[in-house]
Amino acid sequence: MIPFKLSDELIAQVTQHIEEKKDTLLLELLEDVHYADVAEIIDELNLDEATYIIKLLDSEKTSDILTELDDDLREKILENLSAKEIAEEIDELDTDDAADIISELPDERKQEVISELEDKEHAKEIVELLRYDEDSAGGLMAKELVKVNENWNVLTCVKEMRKQAEEVTRVHSIYVVDDDDILKGRLSLKDLLTTSTRTNIKDVYIPKVDYVNVDDKAEDVAKVMSKYDLEAIPVVDEMKRLVGRITIDDIVDVIKEEAEKDYQLAAGITQDVEADDSIWELTRARLPWLFLGLVGGAGAAYIMGFFEDYLETQTTLLMFTPLIAAMAGNVGVQSSAIIVQGLANDDLKGSISNRLIKEMLLAMLNGIILSILLFVFAWVWRGQMDVAIAISISLFVVIIVAGIIGTFIPLFLDKRGIDPAIATGPFITTSNDIFGILLYILIAKMIIGA
Amino acid sequence: MIPFKLSDELIAQVTQHIEEKKDTLLLELLEDVHYADVAEIIDELNLDEATYIIKLLDSEKTSDILTELDDDLREKILENLSAKEIAEEIDELDTDDAADIISELPDERKQEVISELEDKEHAKEIVELLRYDEDSAGGLMAKELVKVNENWNVLTCVKEMRKQAEEVTRVHSIYVVDDDDILKGRLSLKDLLTTSTRTNIKDVYIPKVDYVNVDDKAEDVAKVMSKYDLEAIPVVDEMKRLVGRITIDDIVDVIKEEAEKDYQLAAGITQDVEADDSIWELTRARLPWLFLGLVGGAGAAYIMGFFEDYLETQTTLLMFTPLIAAMAGNVGVQSSAIIVQGLANDDLKGSISNRLIKEMLLAMLNGIILSILLFVFAWVWRGQMDVAIAISISLFVVIIVAGIIGTFIPLFLDKRGIDPAIATGPFITTSNDIFGILLYILIAKMIIGA
Repeated sequence: MIPFKLSDELIAQVTQHIEEKKDTLLLELLEDVHYADVAEIIDELNLDEATYIIKLLDSEKTSDILTELDDDLREKILENLSAKEIAEEIDELDTDDAADIISELPDERKQEVISELEDKEHAKEIVELLRYDEDSAGGLMAKELVKVNENWNVLTCVKEMRKQAEEVTRVHSIYVVDDDDILKGRLSLKDLLTTSTRTNIKDVYIPKVDYVNVDDKAEDVAKVMSKYDLEAIPVVDEMKRLVGRITIDDIVDVIKEEAEKDYQLAAGITQDVEADDSIWELTRARLPWLFLGLVGGAGAAYIMGFFEDYLETQTTLLMFTPLIAAMAGNVGVQSSAIIVQGLANDDLKGSISNRLIKEMLLAMLNGIILSILLFVFAWVWRGQMDVAIAISISLFVVIIVAGIIGTFIPLFLDKRGIDPAIATGPFITTSNDIFGILLYILIAKMIIGA
Repeated sequence: MIPFKLSDELIAQVTQHIEEKKDTLLLELLEDVHYADVAEIIDELNLDEATYIIKLLDSEKTSDILTELDDDLREKILENLSAKEIAEEIDELDTDDAADIISELPDERKQEVISELEDKEHAKEIVELLRYDEDSAGGLMAKELVKVNENWNVLTCVKEMRKQAEEVTRVHSIYVVDDDDILKGRLSLKDLLTTSTRTNIKDVYIPKVDYVNVDDKAEDVAKVMSKYDLEAIPVVDEMKRLVGRITIDDIVDVIKEEAEKDYQLAAGITQDVEADDSIWELTRARLPWLFLGLVGGAGAAYIMGFFEDYLETQTTLLMFTPLIAAMAGNVGVQSSAIIVQGLANDDLKGSISNRLIKEMLLAMLNGIILSILLFVFAWVWRGQMDVAIAISISLFVVIIVAGIIGTFIPLFLDKRGIDPAIATGPFITTSNDIFGILLYILIAKMIIGA
């Protein structure tokens, strides 16, 4: 396919059409453009232009566009629309997307928009979805699904399905429930096509069906769906009643967000920022971690202060402090990243102590190789055997301790129910800076002597 | 659902059954366990036990288990099986999974296994898939799909579909081709169900269909599918002939791998390792980056060597070198991570120079705040105004330069067609260490004077 490519010319053309109010040309230009691509175009426009396009296109398309827009811009555009206009957009959306957009509105507006919704059944479902935590299965699920009663026969079933299918964009599975709406199993489309119309559903459905509970964490739903290669999963409430279904495209978003969050934490960034956010937002995401780094560096300096008289005579030692601190940080980040990833993928087996022993062996192997290299460099360069020995042995010890700390902290946080990903990046680097320098000076002092 | 939880008891039970050769008990125990979970159990066993289970269960289940196993273990198990046994497993698999497993075999075995395959049509398709690069659309796609000729009517179509559907686990879309197998469009199941049986496909199919080319990069296919929320996409060759289809579950794997790779690079790890890999594999993934860090530290020390006489009189300055180096590293990693993520998500807009200016403003804001804090700390602690000024002004400059380098390098690599993710982590940290220290000493010397 020729993928859509956002060009400056296209944006210029759109802006010009808006300025000259050439609605027909604008509609023609955007007609065959996918809503996700129109959203990309709109993300480049100013608020007035963006609102103009949203008001111009019909709500079938704009509702989808709204779901794809940058959060900040969507918020501003919705402020420019009346409750009735928003309700028209919401009427076009599946319940999950509808609930997502409504939940972003200020409280009074929520009420107004909901009362303006045309389809009362739809409105009821959206309101139900609003009460779930957005990071839970309930927050991800949509109410649109195809379900049949176990007491029907295939003929009734096909008739009912056709009716239901009109509201469901993609039929993944047909869920079978009893009279109390309790999930009993599923039907395959294939079986339905090949079974006689008088057969009872009870006799053909597959009683084995994966499902999640409405309060399960989004992250866990993602794990289950990707592990079992599911494209949709039914959601049940505390009484095992079928209340919704989650499709894989929502899970793809969860997986991406999860990965981005971990990546940003490892790089010392919080708050889910993007390159195009404002300087103020980016500062709020970055400054706290830099401050942590500053504290680490100041701490390291302060520790050196205790040994000042000694260090004044050992300039060579001082020149290697950045190296020791950097290596402690690098090893710590590596170790913690491997643990964080193992925890995220659920593939860490064995006890904590085994893991620490393994990390120690690994650090020793790396440590020996790097220490020998450092020894050669320091000795050849400075010609002081004792100093070279002191520096390289310190490096060896620091690498081992850094590896153990980097392994232990995320495991410890995880056991305590805290997201281990915060342990990577500046957090580990900073603590390793401080103890790395301390170990370094103590060991060096021991080896070189006063 | 009650998610499957791997327990030590379960493993112990399995091992015992194997030891005592209690096949019936073993079969009973594993009967209702999902193949992905059986794979988790097998990953915990030794090679002989693993092979025992693979030989015991029927190939319909074991073929799926094999696709889920850890790569190393699968390789070893396959070594323990005859070509005929492997062929039996392969016969059960969809072409994409089959090709993945065969491609891991040594060359002579590949031939043997392929010649043992029962279904010659299946074998031909697998061989076709083997020639595509594994990171391309061709490497991801399966040959199993449902396609109909535009010249058929709905009745023929439904008949043919039933036949084809037997080989296809999940029908996502029905693709419409002409007599030359050229992709013309798609049919919705819904339309098919609601149209008269004598209608011609030509009159009802949807000519607009997203597709990818067989040589498109896996990463780009993932972007297209997740952007447009597609659950399957057809793959065409150079002549636009329909040659396969890619489903979203494979794309989920691509997205996860991509995210893990970037995460590991940011943490200074290569080679796609896991916590449970051998110490040797982990060392190979970690040592090169640590070596880079060592070179950076040694470089910083070497630079300080040029100013040795000066630095001997300035112990305070020396005590702050780890802080300066760490901050240069932290800022660089933050900036590069944001750029790398923006590039990965295709949402970096505007020119490089605009981006550098923004990063500079951001760094100035962070720099001013952190420098003031550092000034206060250094002044209060050491009581030397000139030194405190020198250190804090250096920090300010270093933060700005580090931010610019962190922004520029990934953008530069990307323009050159190199994966910008390698710029994050130790690479940036190391280069920033060196120039950070150099800037620090030069600025301090200028302010404090000799």
